Amino acid sequence: MPRYKILIEYDGTPYAGWQRQKNAPSVQQALEAAIKRFTGEDVLTFGAGRTDSGVHATGQVGHFDLSGEWTGRRIRDAMNAQLRPAPIAILEAEPVDDSFDARYSAVKRHYVYRVIDRRAPAALEINRVWDVRKHLDIDAMQEAANSLLGWNDFTTFRSTDCQALSPMKTLDKLDVRREGDQILFEVSSRSFLHNQVRSMVGTLKKVGEGSWPVGRVAEVLEARDRKACGPVAPAGGLYLVRVDYASGTEQLAEDAAEDEA
Amino acid sequence: MPRYKILIEYDGTPYAGWQRQKNAPSVQQALEAAIKRFTGEDVLTFGAGRTDSGVHATGQVGHFDLSGEWTGRRIRDAMNAQLRPAPIAILEAEPVDDSFDARYSAVKRHYVYRVIDRRAPAALEINRVWDVRKHLDIDAMQEAANSLLGWNDFTTFRSTDCQALSPMKTLDKLDVRREGDQILFEVSSRSFLHNQVRSMVGTLKKVGEGSWPVGRVAEVLEARDRKACGPVAPAGGLYLVRVDYASGTEQLAEDAAEDEA
Repeated sequence: MPRYKILIEYDGTPYAGWQRQKNAPSVQQALEAAIKRFTGEDVLTFGAGRTDSGVHATGQVGHFDLSGEWTGRRIRDAMNAQLRPAPIAILEAEPVDDSFDARYSAVKRHYVYRVIDRRAPAALEINRVWDVRKHLDIDAMQEAANSLLGWNDFTTFRSTDCQALSPMKTLDKLDVRREGDQILFEVSSRSFLHNQVRSMVGTLKKVGEGSWPVGRVAEVLEARDRKACGPVAPAGGLYLVRVDYASGTEQLAEDAAEDEA
Repeated sequence: MPRYKILIEYDGTPYAGWQRQKNAPSVQQALEAAIKRFTGEDVLTFGAGRTDSGVHATGQVGHFDLSGEWTGRRIRDAMNAQLRPAPIAILEAEPVDDSFDARYSAVKRHYVYRVIDRRAPAALEINRVWDVRKHLDIDAMQEAANSLLGWNDFTTFRSTDCQALSPMKTLDKLDVRREGDQILFEVSSRSFLHNQVRSMVGTLKKVGEGSWPVGRVAEVLEARDRKACGPVAPAGGLYLVRVDYASGTEQLAEDAAEDEA
């Protein structure tokens, strides 16, 4: 059966997350219902990142199989028409080789976490940013973030619900930068543990506001103890922005499958 | 009585507009209720721009009088606490001379209109942008926009509900620029007629999509006929971003009072 790859943007606010749930709306369910409405087929969709409830995407990647041949353009436009008025948009669609797997072929995931640190609350960006209402020191947060880079045991930054077999991950990038009254955390890894990005951001915020010294972040990483983590940052500030695939869509090890940032 | 100036951000989506209405929520009413809750006083607030239903602000300016003396910081924080959970934020507040008038002292208003012109709908920016779903030619729109600059009779671009005494206005700036899949219209004038910005943007979109030749915009301006206008662009793409005041807060002519963009 022909396989299709889709690039997806969504507002995660009304959803229980990417993954299909028994009694709550999910992005996966909305996509599968839209596909059914225009093809008549019951399909399963697979996503690169199992984003949590309230987490957004501007570059989620999915795949699914259909019995018929369609152009990418037709898939994109028909799905967008059928998704309306859900806050989900198919940005691109294309037929791909059936060795392509949105989840297992991904070689890198990129997330952005958005904070507004001005004194006034966010009015236009409710559920889109974390408004911390106090000034954060981005240099101190960057220094602490650097201690998380590389191949580490991220037990401290992993939800107790996390189903990954191993807490070992390689964190490739954790950049903290300011844009006006906004702070952006740009985070990249082959894959993430459950709540890993939000756990890291919530912990760095403790440093940014001056409650924790910079060095404590390295210490809590070393502790490998979930109870040592700072508070988990709210879901609404997190965006899955890009997923990279190797040009050969190589199949990767089981480890790469876990992504529940 | 001491007078206070406030800088306001709001999501216009749930409001019937800036101005108090009998049977619908307004930004003005929400501000006045918040002030009453922390001061016990019934006040009237005055705004620089009478934004329409669904129009947003990142830089609206207002003023009001209180019997007591407060610091700007206290006004800002107390209003923000009392406004919650309304999508309205007081960014700054300060005591001002009682000759200052948010509406009559304004010397320039700046609006931005946001369009997304990609093929896919806007998922994360519903009610925040106009998603036109087709590619627009910004060079053609800029050329047409230039014919609207200067001192003109804007009857064509004015709602039939407009209460301004004169249709004559000086349009100081109408810049069209691209930022990724977004097009920004940056528009400045001492003041605007009712629906003027949205009427100009909706008309320029006809040029951008190729339905109208560039020269037709100068012709419809010249026609001074509301029926010659293009469709009015949706409210959700419009933002009042800044209001300028002369350093001496000079009182301006009656003309300056009209702003219902």
